Amino acid sequence: MTDNSHDFPAEEDYGLNVSLVEAVLEVVKQGSQQQLLGLLEPLHEADIADILEQISPSERESLLALWGKEIDGEVLSELEEGLRDEVMRDLPDDVLAEAVRDLDTDDVVYLVEDLDEPQQEKLLERLDDADRVAVEQALTYGEDSAGRLMQREVVVAPAHWTVGDIIDYMREADHLPESFYDVIVVDPMMRPVGEVRLATIMGAAREVPIAELMEKDFRTIPVDQDIEDVAYAFNQYHMVSAPVVDHAGRLVGVITIDDAMEVLEDEVEEDMNRLAGVGDEDLTDKVWRITKARFPWLAVNLATSILASIVISQFTDVIEAIVALAVLLPIVASMGGNAATQTLTVAVRAIATRDLTPSNALRIVLRETLVGLMNGVVFAVIIGIVGVVWFGDPMLGVVLGLAMVANLLVAGMAGILVPITLDKLGADPALASGAFVTTVTDIVGFFSFLGLAALMLL
Amino acid sequence: MTDNSHDFPAEEDYGLNVSLVEAVLEVVKQGSQQQLLGLLEPLHEADIADILEQISPSERESLLALWGKEIDGEVLSELEEGLRDEVMRDLPDDVLAEAVRDLDTDDVVYLVEDLDEPQQEKLLERLDDADRVAVEQALTYGEDSAGRLMQREVVVAPAHWTVGDIIDYMREADHLPESFYDVIVVDPMMRPVGEVRLATIMGAAREVPIAELMEKDFRTIPVDQDIEDVAYAFNQYHMVSAPVVDHAGRLVGVITIDDAMEVLEDEVEEDMNRLAGVGDEDLTDKVWRITKARFPWLAVNLATSILASIVISQFTDVIEAIVALAVLLPIVASMGGNAATQTLTVAVRAIATRDLTPSNALRIVLRETLVGLMNGVVFAVIIGIVGVVWFGDPMLGVVLGLAMVANLLVAGMAGILVPITLDKLGADPALASGAFVTTVTDIVGFFSFLGLAALMLL
Repeated sequence: MTDNSHDFPAEEDYGLNVSLVEAVLEVVKQGSQQQLLGLLEPLHEADIADILEQISPSERESLLALWGKEIDGEVLSELEEGLRDEVMRDLPDDVLAEAVRDLDTDDVVYLVEDLDEPQQEKLLERLDDADRVAVEQALTYGEDSAGRLMQREVVVAPAHWTVGDIIDYMREADHLPESFYDVIVVDPMMRPVGEVRLATIMGAAREVPIAELMEKDFRTIPVDQDIEDVAYAFNQYHMVSAPVVDHAGRLVGVITIDDAMEVLEDEVEEDMNRLAGVGDEDLTDKVWRITKARFPWLAVNLATSILASIVISQFTDVIEAIVALAVLLPIVASMGGNAATQTLTVAVRAIATRDLTPSNALRIVLRETLVGLMNGVVFAVIIGIVGVVWFGDPMLGVVLGLAMVANLLVAGMAGILVPITLDKLGADPALASGAFVTTVTDIVGFFSFLGLAALMLL
Repeated sequence: MTDNSHDFPAEEDYGLNVSLVEAVLEVVKQGSQQQLLGLLEPLHEADIADILEQISPSERESLLALWGKEIDGEVLSELEEGLRDEVMRDLPDDVLAEAVRDLDTDDVVYLVEDLDEPQQEKLLERLDDADRVAVEQALTYGEDSAGRLMQREVVVAPAHWTVGDIIDYMREADHLPESFYDVIVVDPMMRPVGEVRLATIMGAAREVPIAELMEKDFRTIPVDQDIEDVAYAFNQYHMVSAPVVDHAGRLVGVITIDDAMEVLEDEVEEDMNRLAGVGDEDLTDKVWRITKARFPWLAVNLATSILASIVISQFTDVIEAIVALAVLLPIVASMGGNAATQTLTVAVRAIATRDLTPSNALRIVLRETLVGLMNGVVFAVIIGIVGVVWFGDPMLGVVLGLAMVANLLVAGMAGILVPITLDKLGADPALASGAFVTTVTDIVGFFSFLGLAALMLL
């Protein structure tokens, strides 16, 4: 026992390893369904979905064909959206219906919500009546609403019950929800009046009234609330589950932390993508779809960079006189763009987490402006020296330094003011900011650099 | 009842509203501790922490002084890191010790881990012996390890127990952990052999042996595993809680989904910040600290943009002959930079979520290259036309178009190959990619544009 390193699972024990994927592909090539099932059986559905995502389209087709009627509905709900819809379109109706039949209704909702109507109907027809009604009901709620996210199966107790009543009820129940952590105490109108953790119930004697144990200070979620707000509440208040209520305050479902966690991750990822000009795309999307998805942002960027070029074109006589200016232009643009992106990213994130509010907005704007000014001064000195050393012209160094101060100062201000303004106007600060902000810094940078050059160097 | 709009909490019901912050500041100005406590009492600790973060440093100082001995330790653990350390440094030792005394040991660990040693020791001295030993033990684990994240209080049961034994044990226990969802079944060596959900226990009759109910197929987390891997596992496998084990496989604690959710959010946020050249900073940090934190990235960017300038300086004779080239240079740089950033962001995220693996890397590289090529061709046509219309020179349009194809093709390739390569070398792809990739696209863009101009236009 001199080597302990194998006592611990390696990092690859989570997620996939290459040799497993290769083994699956080998079995698919041989066409042995039995061996395929043997390989997939010990895997988590999320890992099987990852295999499907990471192999080529033709390999995927062969795998799905070989898997056939044994395909697991939960794997479908783990696939990324674009691929899921594609796979579900291609599966034979009876195979799909079979795969979906055993899923919880909230998983079914998730699977069918993006299907086109004829296929959606065909699938719903094959569900049990109770499940079909539940799914159809859920689909009446808005796409990003709590009603879509919630599970409809809830364990409730009237306020006059004791711990013993709840335990007896649960022991006799045919079917309890797959995951739940609280019993929701309701009044006769089905309005939640309290929540009790399972652990609290289990730690109390049978005769204790539930009303004595329940937490009365809890948050309910309106059924049409945006899931972004739901995720915020779970994260901010460390909630584990929360009752969802309709307009009359009646309990209609429950949202649990695992649902909220997915939404939260999606929201941060969306901000990250939008800041980079990446829209709604998946890793399995085809070239043509990706090209189209990225086109609009590049087109906006082309338009704004032409604006910046127009600024330069006003100063062609200065550039013709001093060609060093053309050499140095990209430095001015690049520094301004990067400083603005730093501030912008911090601002977009702070708005999303509701840490940037009217209470501190003025202070943060001031701070970012000062940071821009200070880094502007520092880099003015550095770039001024570079300019003098490189081109041997002290005045060129001065012009470059002054332009750097102006540019980084404006970068800081634009980086914070543009997202705040967009948010106030009801637009997503992450979506539109990059285009606005880099246009501002490019234009200010080129104008101040070339304008100062015209004034001081000619 | 014609207006239902007030039945629903408005969005502001989560998080803070401005009038509350103003009310708190007014009470602080009047110096009434009683009124302050009245205002803070109904608030969640996370919201009180947000108030402290959003008011000015001097207002914060007054509030904390007025709050005095009543300060709530949980509020401290909700503060962002920089501010938390500052507040804890400034609080009198006895106030701090009082605030921390009632916290769970994992919260205490979180609070004291960044304090400097003398203050850490002073605080630990004032804890109960059992708590102090627990905190000191936790601090022996690595900073980003599962051992720091886990809670040490666990409900365990030997495999020979029945449901009734567990219920009786829980009813007699003095103190149960604040949040737990599973009972962990252990062998006589304290090695986990199974997990049972509380709901499962409650749904079963008293005489049922726990061994019949327990899930034997569960994941354990090594105590020194990186929390990033822990968060990945919770997210991938929809885990709610997981036992943490030491090198001998003995149970030492448990990690729950709420801890994993925070880590997951931090990780995405870190990637987002690093891509934008933002380091470790908080919204409450002072100007000077932020300036210093942003400086290194701007310095790297200055160095790389000087490299790009050196490329331009090789072509000053061409620019002197055709000044339109200087006007168009920023368009070439900007389009390449943006296309590369799109690919880069997707790649960094896919590496983080382990969706980009050796199994599909080649296919994704090919895809990104093709996307670059296709958008390159489309924008070559557009910018070619712009060039002809603007400057009336068809050959200039051709040069611009060809440079655009080359630049976007290289942007796609660099955007995917650089992060993959960095990841293989063990570096964080998000940290270093931006600088590398924009340097590549700038240099290729300027070289191809000016080089082609020299060949075709002179």
